[in-house]
Amino acid sequence: MDTRLCVGLDPEPRQFPGHLRDRSDFNDSVFEFNKAIIDATVDLTCCYKPQFAHFAALGAELALERTIRYIQDNNVPVLLDVKRGDIGSTAEKYAIEAFERYGADAATINPYLGYDAMAPYLAYKDKGIFILCRTSNEGGRDLQNLVLDNGRQLFEHVAEQASSVWNSHGNVALVTGATHARELRCIREITGQMTFLLPGIGAQGGDIAESLSAGQGGGLIISSSRAILYASSGPDFAQAARVVAEATRNEIRAHQLAA
Amino acid sequence: MDTRLCVGLDPEPRQFPGHLRDRSDFNDSVFEFNKAIIDATVDLTCCYKPQFAHFAALGAELALERTIRYIQDNNVPVLLDVKRGDIGSTAEKYAIEAFERYGADAATINPYLGYDAMAPYLAYKDKGIFILCRTSNEGGRDLQNLVLDNGRQLFEHVAEQASSVWNSHGNVALVTGATHARELRCIREITGQMTFLLPGIGAQGGDIAESLSAGQGGGLIISSSRAILYASSGPDFAQAARVVAEATRNEIRAHQLAA
Repeated sequence: MDTRLCVGLDPEPRQFPGHLRDRSDFNDSVFEFNKAIIDATVDLTCCYKPQFAHFAALGAELALERTIRYIQDNNVPVLLDVKRGDIGSTAEKYAIEAFERYGADAATINPYLGYDAMAPYLAYKDKGIFILCRTSNEGGRDLQNLVLDNGRQLFEHVAEQASSVWNSHGNVALVTGATHARELRCIREITGQMTFLLPGIGAQGGDIAESLSAGQGGGLIISSSRAILYASSGPDFAQAARVVAEATRNEIRAHQLAA
Repeated sequence: MDTRLCVGLDPEPRQFPGHLRDRSDFNDSVFEFNKAIIDATVDLTCCYKPQFAHFAALGAELALERTIRYIQDNNVPVLLDVKRGDIGSTAEKYAIEAFERYGADAATINPYLGYDAMAPYLAYKDKGIFILCRTSNEGGRDLQNLVLDNGRQLFEHVAEQASSVWNSHGNVALVTGATHARELRCIREITGQMTFLLPGIGAQGGDIAESLSAGQGGGLIISSSRAILYASSGPDFAQAARVVAEATRNEIRAHQLAA
């Protein structure tokens, strides 16, 4: 059945159930945790979004590789949340990391370094490139809401560029926090039908109904991580994750029908 | 003797000398290459700057760990070039990656997500936080040179914030491409004595004399990577790297005295 829910995978061993918490090798415990979450939610999600930092902090690159492969073996696409941004020659290496080493289907990238820094990702025409536009955090406004001399805010400029000159291969999507409905509406007006990833539901407090209403008119992927992953820290964690994921999926669906 | 040269470590096996090029395990060949470069240049550098993407694309995290430890065993600090930027709870994990897992002395970060996304790095008071201001690439201007409604350009705003409210622990430095002398002069005027990392010398075409003149009045670290690392692809690569590094160090020193 149709679902717009993306489950973010932010493994945090301190929040794992006891039998997975105190392992010597995080690669095993992180993969086991992720596998249990995936098995419990795979019919509810349109994609999974592993968050790179949570693996990197643990030295768990192997768990990231195994997690991605496991998701894809279940015929679900993987959006690797890396938010990379670097000059062209280095961006080529980051694109290899995301799309060849890890084999992700899509990745998040940061636009601060401009077009030539994004071009190596965009050149992977069969991959999705999710450019940060208006991020879900409070500090997102520090730069992104600055007003330019043409009266537009910086995030609007990013939305404009991302939906025109940067999107020559048609594989660009935007990251737009579910915590900022006004900005989301504005970005939708600028970009037409472009797909948005909306993080910020759940632990960050974003509202599903408001976000779906503001973002309507194009593809929407609603991402939730911690609220699902850590619904319980007991041995029932996977079942508890399913309950929250299903409720979130259903809430999204109900408001989609209403929108 | 005083040196302002930072050697960037961007390992690229295709450019390694033959005996290191065709190994099955990049962790060994990359570390051996880096070790040879470090041994040949350690008295010429004020720091080394391993570029994360080049290791990540190869799955060579172990080589990165070993390289960093080897540099520090030689009593030289390590600036880990990761250019991370993510919301606070994730930035905490990236800060752990850079400063605890890899034990770097400093790291580069991206300001697009604003203050709360940088705070977890800034909280490491004994670490250097190098915030991207005006990057060395052409596309840097796409966002960074946008003019705000107060007449300032975005990179000037970043310089202002970085040298005031973001720098409450006094551990902030800026990344400012040596390829843009006019912007560099402007950033120096805004920030006073703040330290700048100037990438873009060498392969990217930045001019040492012009950069030192424009950046004078505060700390300057001049970074060069490919021009040094790949001065030769023969068995004499380390000696050739030393020749270029020494010439670069001397050129910096001559212009410093003249400035």
